[in-house]
Amino acid sequence: MYQQKFFTIRLKPENSRIVEVLDQRVLPFKESIIELHTSDDAIHAIKEMVVRGAPLIGITAAYGLYLACLEAPFQQAQFSNHVKHVAEKLIDARPTAVNLKRAVDLCLDAMHSGMSPEAQTKIVLQTAIQLEEEDQNANYKIGEFGLGLLEEILANKKNGEPIQILTHCNAGALGCTAWGTATAPMYLAKEKGLNIHVWVDETRPRNQGYLTAWELEKQNIPHTLITDNTGGLLMLQHKIDLVIVGADRVTKNGDTANKIGTYLKAVAAKDNNIPFYVALPLSTYDPTLADGVKEIEIEERNGDEIRFSSVWNGEEVHKMQTINEEVKVYNPGFDITPSRLITGFITENGVLKPDQLV
Amino acid sequence: MYQQKFFTIRLKPENSRIVEVLDQRVLPFKESIIELHTSDDAIHAIKEMVVRGAPLIGITAAYGLYLACLEAPFQQAQFSNHVKHVAEKLIDARPTAVNLKRAVDLCLDAMHSGMSPEAQTKIVLQTAIQLEEEDQNANYKIGEFGLGLLEEILANKKNGEPIQILTHCNAGALGCTAWGTATAPMYLAKEKGLNIHVWVDETRPRNQGYLTAWELEKQNIPHTLITDNTGGLLMLQHKIDLVIVGADRVTKNGDTANKIGTYLKAVAAKDNNIPFYVALPLSTYDPTLADGVKEIEIEERNGDEIRFSSVWNGEEVHKMQTINEEVKVYNPGFDITPSRLITGFITENGVLKPDQLV
Repeated sequence: MYQQKFFTIRLKPENSRIVEVLDQRVLPFKESIIELHTSDDAIHAIKEMVVRGAPLIGITAAYGLYLACLEAPFQQAQFSNHVKHVAEKLIDARPTAVNLKRAVDLCLDAMHSGMSPEAQTKIVLQTAIQLEEEDQNANYKIGEFGLGLLEEILANKKNGEPIQILTHCNAGALGCTAWGTATAPMYLAKEKGLNIHVWVDETRPRNQGYLTAWELEKQNIPHTLITDNTGGLLMLQHKIDLVIVGADRVTKNGDTANKIGTYLKAVAAKDNNIPFYVALPLSTYDPTLADGVKEIEIEERNGDEIRFSSVWNGEEVHKMQTINEEVKVYNPGFDITPSRLITGFITENGVLKPDQLV
Repeated sequence: MYQQKFFTIRLKPENSRIVEVLDQRVLPFKESIIELHTSDDAIHAIKEMVVRGAPLIGITAAYGLYLACLEAPFQQAQFSNHVKHVAEKLIDARPTAVNLKRAVDLCLDAMHSGMSPEAQTKIVLQTAIQLEEEDQNANYKIGEFGLGLLEEILANKKNGEPIQILTHCNAGALGCTAWGTATAPMYLAKEKGLNIHVWVDETRPRNQGYLTAWELEKQNIPHTLITDNTGGLLMLQHKIDLVIVGADRVTKNGDTANKIGTYLKAVAAKDNNIPFYVALPLSTYDPTLADGVKEIEIEERNGDEIRFSSVWNGEEVHKMQTINEEVKVYNPGFDITPSRLITGFITENGVLKPDQLV
């Protein structure tokens, strides 16, 4: 039975007025838990990427609003003002994550003005817990449908060789509360005793592959870390059976925005007739945009993500310079994979072809 | 007029019994010159990658043999024994670089046994200088033919927009004695006043893109450093006019071994109808192998290249850990680009299609 050997967010077991989160900035070196006592702590955790991944950011925001309720003056008007003020600050903490605004709005909608501050606090906490359940249910379904794909591949394998999966970035349990999206089929495969091996892209410049390697190690799934340059060679050498990645946004035509570098893996997979799947909770599907290549605006991130690396000195994680500050860099956060390169979307409703999304 | 604003190797101006090399391990932070006084110094410089790049390694070996002549006992038999012993050690310093063995063999062939130690010393130095000239002449020719390609692209540009070139790794002057191979067309374009801009792949895990950025900066060529993940997005966005890379080995059918990650750029270039050129001094062409994808053995390098990064603490370059030592990594040094993805080879004999190499 799958039991996740870490948590990303939870109420402190002995004190439900405190929220605990795993500090993802110091992984994979240190497992450090940070306590959030106030809504400001929650905003800080989102801004500084103590927590990351769109679903987890949303859930952290809901817990942040719960902390806002706890710290608010116990007088109806002042209570409401404080909560609304925090809600705005939470939404501004990371403007691009669509789940964040959705989570805050769900909490606000649940808080009827006629309720007492106590009742409102309770319903915000319930909403946070409900968002966690939604996240886990969608991911579990993605896992089941993805498992079906892995079993098909296994049926064509000889000699009990492992199914070779390539993934990019961390669309894992660390960005959610359990299972993850791209990782859910891997965890279900492990639970069922399927022989799998995961090639994990380093994912420059922020090296989210380190997080994927960390969580796969926790769950005892065999894996190997590679540079982002290596996946093409592995495909040419028939060492990859399928690619599974996550998504930041999928447009009406199936074009997929995901971490920078995803497109290079998709085009190489096509060149080698290797299936390329996108794990997609349907909350990430955005039919308001028709064409991803033309319409999705690419977020340009700070060049220091390229110029500095997180290194370990034996005690602490430090940011250290790897190239002169004068060097001109360009650091787009994601790219677009045209739908023609995508074999299918693994969603909570089944594995869909790009033209079945609508 | 092009004047290279750095050197990679030379006789010390005031003392021709000493060889000076630029220490490429501490670039781009520090321009540090290391003196080679003995043949052991030269072997160490090759082994520790103080010098790198196949042509430069060969030339350094020839200078190393010259230092062996200077330090050898001035008695015919002992002189020859010492030189032969050093020759073997030089060849073993980096077993995969074909230019290294070729350079040492050229020097040994030039040393007739009837000559005096003095005459043999002189002829080894002459061979080293001749290898330098060969390197520069081939690269200059590659530059001229590559310039022709850039001029064709310029003719189709409007509004004086720069020609956008993508390159991977460092096939630059730093790996040679001047011009470089993939960079030669860029330097000739600069000399002619063509408006160019170079996108420089970081090139994990050893970040040779930092070296390319350093040498382009020295020669005032506009450039931008990007992660290896970024080139595909730039191609999709029509921000790249052509790709030029170097080569480690090209087989009879035109399959090209080059730094890991090259294939991903080639397949994305094809997907976007962008010309993909390999700059190839014909000494790198190996018609003894028929098919690169099937026959070229891929060198697996130490995983610590992925686990450690060179960082700058303001005074020195240090190796620091970026991921736990227990993490399993796989670090192949190069990949194969099938000839079907290559638009042409820019050689000292002209721009050749894959089927014109034979």
